Amino acid sequence: MKIGLLGFGVVGRGVYEIVNARADMHIAKVLCLEDISLPDAEAVQDFKQILEDDSIDTVVEAMGGLHPAYEFVSAALDAGKNVVTSNKALVCTFYDQLLPLALEKGVLLRATAAVGGGIGWLSELERSRRVQAIREVGGIMNGTCNYILDNMTRLGLGYGEALKQAQSLGYAEANPSTDVDGIDTWHKVILSSNVAFGVSLEKDTVPVAGIANITAADVESFTVHGLVCKLISTGKRTEDGYSAYVQPTLVSAGSLEAAVPLNYNLITFLGESSEKMSFYGQGAGRYPTAYNVVQDLVDVLSGKGFYAPYGGKAAAKNDQAMAYYVRGGWDGAAAEDWGSGVVTEPVPVDAMHRWLKAHPQAFAAGIRE
Amino acid sequence: MKIGLLGFGVVGRGVYEIVNARADMHIAKVLCLEDISLPDAEAVQDFKQILEDDSIDTVVEAMGGLHPAYEFVSAALDAGKNVVTSNKALVCTFYDQLLPLALEKGVLLRATAAVGGGIGWLSELERSRRVQAIREVGGIMNGTCNYILDNMTRLGLGYGEALKQAQSLGYAEANPSTDVDGIDTWHKVILSSNVAFGVSLEKDTVPVAGIANITAADVESFTVHGLVCKLISTGKRTEDGYSAYVQPTLVSAGSLEAAVPLNYNLITFLGESSEKMSFYGQGAGRYPTAYNVVQDLVDVLSGKGFYAPYGGKAAAKNDQAMAYYVRGGWDGAAAEDWGSGVVTEPVPVDAMHRWLKAHPQAFAAGIRE
Repeated sequence: MKIGLLGFGVVGRGVYEIVNARADMHIAKVLCLEDISLPDAEAVQDFKQILEDDSIDTVVEAMGGLHPAYEFVSAALDAGKNVVTSNKALVCTFYDQLLPLALEKGVLLRATAAVGGGIGWLSELERSRRVQAIREVGGIMNGTCNYILDNMTRLGLGYGEALKQAQSLGYAEANPSTDVDGIDTWHKVILSSNVAFGVSLEKDTVPVAGIANITAADVESFTVHGLVCKLISTGKRTEDGYSAYVQPTLVSAGSLEAAVPLNYNLITFLGESSEKMSFYGQGAGRYPTAYNVVQDLVDVLSGKGFYAPYGGKAAAKNDQAMAYYVRGGWDGAAAEDWGSGVVTEPVPVDAMHRWLKAHPQAFAAGIRE
Repeated sequence: MKIGLLGFGVVGRGVYEIVNARADMHIAKVLCLEDISLPDAEAVQDFKQILEDDSIDTVVEAMGGLHPAYEFVSAALDAGKNVVTSNKALVCTFYDQLLPLALEKGVLLRATAAVGGGIGWLSELERSRRVQAIREVGGIMNGTCNYILDNMTRLGLGYGEALKQAQSLGYAEANPSTDVDGIDTWHKVILSSNVAFGVSLEKDTVPVAGIANITAADVESFTVHGLVCKLISTGKRTEDGYSAYVQPTLVSAGSLEAAVPLNYNLITFLGESSEKMSFYGQGAGRYPTAYNVVQDLVDVLSGKGFYAPYGGKAAAKNDQAMAYYVRGGWDGAAAEDWGSGVVTEPVPVDAMHRWLKAHPQAFAAGIRE
C-alpha cells in the first residue's frame, strides 16, 4: 500500500510515525504547506503531486476542516484512490456526496477515528451489524465538553474558568464554538446513526444544544439533586422512524456516564441481542486518533470499505417528551423550582430546542430517567 | 456453513435462534441429551452423529464444563472441523492442547463469548494487535461477583443475603464457588493475557483470591473511606516478563469501575497508541453470549481463526508491592487501622496471596492507587 498523507499536524504526524514502523504500508508523499523534509517520504506542497501519482493507491486526509479537504478527498476518490479520514465534519457534511462517489468508483472509504478518536466505535458498529440490528447509539462524544463539565462538577469551577483551563491544556480551541456548542457531537451522532441504521439523516432535523450557558449555580443544583450534567447525544430507531438530538443531559451521580472523567468519551449502543454495550477511551489526541487511522488502513488492505450501505435520506422526528431543567425565562409549566432554575413538566424534545433557539441566553438540560 | 451444535441450554438455544434467522449458515444437528424435536435441525444424542458427518464443517460447543467438552472439541478439530465455543474453562485449561491442534489441522478456533459474554473483547484485542502492542488487560469480568458486591455496597446487604438474591435471580449457581472464589475471572484473565501478549501463561503462577469472605462491616469501612470493592483481574507486561492475578480490589468511589452496576462487566486494555480503552456490557446471558458465538461463526466464514499466535509458555511474576485492606489475623506491618480491618504497608502481591492461602478465613483487598 502506497499512501499520500494530507496534513502533517497532530494526527498526521502520529499516522506517519505508526505507519513508518510497519512493513505492509508506506507513506510515499506528505502534503504540507510548511517546508519540511522527511527521511522516508517526499514532502509536497501541491495536492496534484499526490492526485496524479498513479503509484499512490490510498490517501489519508488529516488536514481537518471542510475545504479544501472535501475537494481533495472527492478528487482522490474520483481518481480511484481509497480514502481514510479522521474528519467527522467532512464525512458528516458530505455524506451524500462521498459515499455514493466511493461506491460508484469502487474504492474504499473509512473514517473510524472520526467518532471516538481511539475507540473502535464505527468499526464495532460495522461488526455488530453483521449479526444484529442496532436500536440506539449515543453518549459522551466530545472530550472538551466533558473536561469542562467534569471540572465544574468536581472542582466547583465556573464555566469561563473551566473553559480557560481546557484551553490552556490544549483540550479546547481559542474559539471553542465547535465543541461547546455541540457541533462536533452533532457531526458524530449523525455519522453514528447513519452507520448504525443504514440511513442518511437529514441534518437539519437533528437539533443541537450546547453547554456554553451553563453556570456554577446550575451545577451546584445538580449536585444537590444527585445529578451530573454531561453533553449527551442520542440517535435511535423509533416506532415510526428515527429520533436524534444533542443536548446537555442530567444523569444520576452513580451512573457510568457520571464517572467519565477529564476529556474521555463514553459511547454506547443498544443492540437487539448484545443489549447495552459501552466503549470508553480517548476521543482525541495524536496517538489514539492515529491508531484508528492506521486500523482503517489495515482494513483497506483487506478490502473493507464503508461500515454500512448508503441508505436513503431520513428525517429525525423528536416529538417524544421529557422533563428538562431550565434556567432563563421558562414560561411553560414547571414541576419543581430548584432555585437556580426550574424543572419542567415533560416537554417534547423538538419544542424545547425551538424554545432554546428563541432564548439564546437560556440553559436547558434534559433529565434522563 | 453447516453447523453441529453441542448443547441446547441457555446459550445453545440463543445460538439456534439467531442462526436460524440467517441465510449464510445452518444448524444441521443439535446434540442434546433430552429428547427434543426441532423443525430445522436433527436432534441427536450421540456426538458421533456430528463428528462423523462430513457435511458438518463447524462445531459450536455450548455445553460448558471440561468433560466431555474437551474430548468433543478435540475430536472435532482433529476431524478437520472448525470450532466456536463460549467455554472459558475449556479454552483456558486446554490452551496448550487446543491451539496447537487447531494449527496442526489447519482449522479455525474462536471463543469470543468466553470473555465478556456479549462484549467484543477478544475480537477487539485481535484487532488491536494488528496496530499496537498491548501493555495491560483486566477489569470486572464476572457478573455474579459484581452483582453481589454492588448490592452489598448500594443496599448494605450482608454477603450471604446478597448471594441468595443473586441465586434467586439466576445470576449465581447453587454452588457459587466458580464465581465467588474468582475461578471464572481467573480463566478469563489468563485467556485475555494469552491473547493480548501472545503467550501461554503458566496457570499455577497466576494467584486468585475471591470475595466469599467479605462482610457488611468491610464494605461499610470502604464506603467511609470513599472506596468501592470490586473483584478485579490484572494481566500485564512488566519489565522482565508478565504479571497476572485476580483479587478483590478497592477503587475510588468516583471511578468508572465503581459505577459498574448489577451483573455488568467492564474490561479494559492499555494499548501503546490507543491508551486506555474500556468495554462495558453484559458478560453473560442467553442473547449477549449467543451474539458473540454467531459473530465468531461469521468470522469463521471469512477464514478468521484464533486471535493471536500460539506463544510460548510464560510464568507470571507478581512481586510488585501494594497496600491491602486485610481482616483476619494480619501479623505483618500495618499502616492504618480501619476498625473492621487494617491497611497494610505495601506487600508483594504473591506474598499476600500466599498469606491468604494460609489463612482461609481472612479477607484481603488490594488498594488501587
